[in-house]
Amino acid sequence: MPANSGSSGMLEDNAHVFPVRVYYEDTDAGGIVYYANYLKFAERARTELLRLSGINQSVLISEQGVAFAVRQCSADFLKPARLDDALEVHTRVLQIRGASVEMAQSIKRDGVDMVKVGVKLACMSGFDRPSRIPAPVRAVLLNFVNRKMASLDGT
Amino acid sequence: MPANSGSSGMLEDNAHVFPVRVYYEDTDAGGIVYYANYLKFAERARTELLRLSGINQSVLISEQGVAFAVRQCSADFLKPARLDDALEVHTRVLQIRGASVEMAQSIKRDGVDMVKVGVKLACMSGFDRPSRIPAPVRAVLLNFVNRKMASLDGT
Amino acid sequence: MPANSGSSGMLEDNAHVFPVRVYYEDTDAGGIVYYANYLKFAERARTELLRLSGINQSVLISEQGVAFAVRQCSADFLKPARLDDALEVHTRVLQIRGASVEMAQSIKRDGVDMVKVGVKLACMSGFDRPSRIPAPVRAVLLNFVNRKMASLDGT
Amino acid sequence: MPANSGSSGMLEDNAHVFPVRVYYEDTDAGGIVYYANYLKFAERARTELLRLSGINQSVLISEQGVAFAVRQCSADFLKPARLDDALEVHTRVLQIRGASVEMAQSIKRDGVDMVKVGVKLACMSGFDRPSRIPAPVRAVLLNFVNRKMASLDGT
Repeated sequence: MPANSGSSGMLEDNAHVFPVRVYYEDTDAGGIVYYANYLKFAERARTELLRLSGINQSVLISEQGVAFAVRQCSADFLKPARLDDALEVHTRVLQIRGASVEMAQSIKRDGVDMVKVGVKLACMSGFDRPSRIPAPVRAVLLNFVNRKMASLDGT
Repeated sequence: MPANSGSSGMLEDNAHVFPVRVYYEDTDAGGIVYYANYLKFAERARTELLRLSGINQSVLISEQGVAFAVRQCSADFLKPARLDDALEVHTRVLQIRGASVEMAQSIKRDGVDMVKVGVKLACMSGFDRPSRIPAPVRAVLLNFVNRKMASLDGT
Repeated sequence: MPANSGSSGMLEDNAHVFPVRVYYEDTDAGGIVYYANYLKFAERARTELLRLSGINQSVLISEQGVAFAVRQCSADFLKPARLDDALEVHTRVLQIRGASVEMAQSIKRDGVDMVKVGVKLACMSGFDRPSRIPAPVRAVLLNFVNRKMASLDGT
Repeated sequence: MPANSGSSGMLEDNAHVFPVRVYYEDTDAGGIVYYANYLKFAERARTELLRLSGINQSVLISEQGVAFAVRQCSADFLKPARLDDALEVHTRVLQIRGASVEMAQSIKRDGVDMVKVGVKLACMSGFDRPSRIPAPVRAVLLNFVNRKMASLDGT
């Protein structure tokens, strides 16, 4: 059962799949998940995508002095998730450049897209200067590239 | 001083301006505001834009059974905000349709854009069916329309 | 490995043990987990303690009209957790009364207590009237009682 | 009107009074404020108590290398707050020691206690060693001491 597949998710058909459970903390008085909280789910999944391949962001910072910062994101809220829902975040890498990477993420329930998220991340040194993505990270990201998918901005 | 202008913000040059202070809860281990939290600031400002004109969302729900749901949002993270920063959220209405509205928001520090947010909101009845925007709400939103600005999708 | 034991945790020596990973969203500009966020971890664990035995809180609400509300909580922050830490929440039931239950929770890293949490929960009907704890829930809670431990208030 | 008294709150009868508005982000699917979020309100108020007297925590860190960490907290949840509520956090200092301070906070709506919070804060140097509270901070805290109130632990 994917929801029990472990804390770092798994690689499935070129996508990283990460289970997320909806708790009270994630919901709001409308009875549904608060819109900004889906971006937390998406960030957890991106973190686990790296961790699944042995890359730990806090080690990246302490040993190489680099971190990823979100430069741009977009979200389409298609259907609302609710308390106790077992969601999955599917993450694919769209494009890798020297110091940035684009990903497409879909937050699904029972295989149905609930929220689609696009992000552009910049690799930063000291939190303020762009920096080349370290080679081992680049190698991991390449596993999640789906060459059939277009870039976020159509290129 | 804008940061002390009161909890519902103010109307300034066709934009709603709402002060937000950055607390520890908003920041992350990178020393900056966590990316999803800017969307909380943006939602607070949209709520206060309505409240400034006497429209209270919980009354909208209890009396008219309607609420706004975010359908789409995008964010450009230009500069990072930090602990104790005094920010301002500037909100303009781009386009009002029968059951939806588009807004452009800029989160600024000392007049400089830090994060730009675009949102499309749908007016919903019972949290699941599209509903016409009530006339008094529409009247308020019209005060924040800047006719010189283009729609989010260029129309 | 406990951190991968699945999303509902496990029963271990009369305690419910639930793994929690620390993400950026949980940390603050001090580089450590923000104090209120440990209470989110504790609530996730309490939810999974019930789910592990097949009790789903959203079903409790929809079918029986009851929910648990936190009446009191206390927390001792012994050591700070950091980004990427793999934590475990250990939960024991201290005392079960007709319409309330007391639990003791410890958030650990590598077996060391980081934060100790005590909570008193009230079973509520319609979110506002005390209600007897349903028998199946009571039966589950009894599995986590450690009769050697004292109640939170020493009784 | 207290809710509009400005972002740093005010001194009223030996207590610091700080207005907080409840937004969607603060609520959960139970229709009420999520229990951990009251601790965010309490922390905002403690921050503004210092700021009202010109003490900025990020300056404390950068210039003196000290910060306050929560060592202990307790909360009694008396009545639930809801979306759009205008709350006030009333903060008093109970006891000041060399490197720590105890405060009692009450989160009120229309003068009625909703949640009562007690906290013990430690002054830390470099986030890990206890440090004497700087004299200017101690002087500010003394303004909020109510000598008629007992310490949290009855001393």
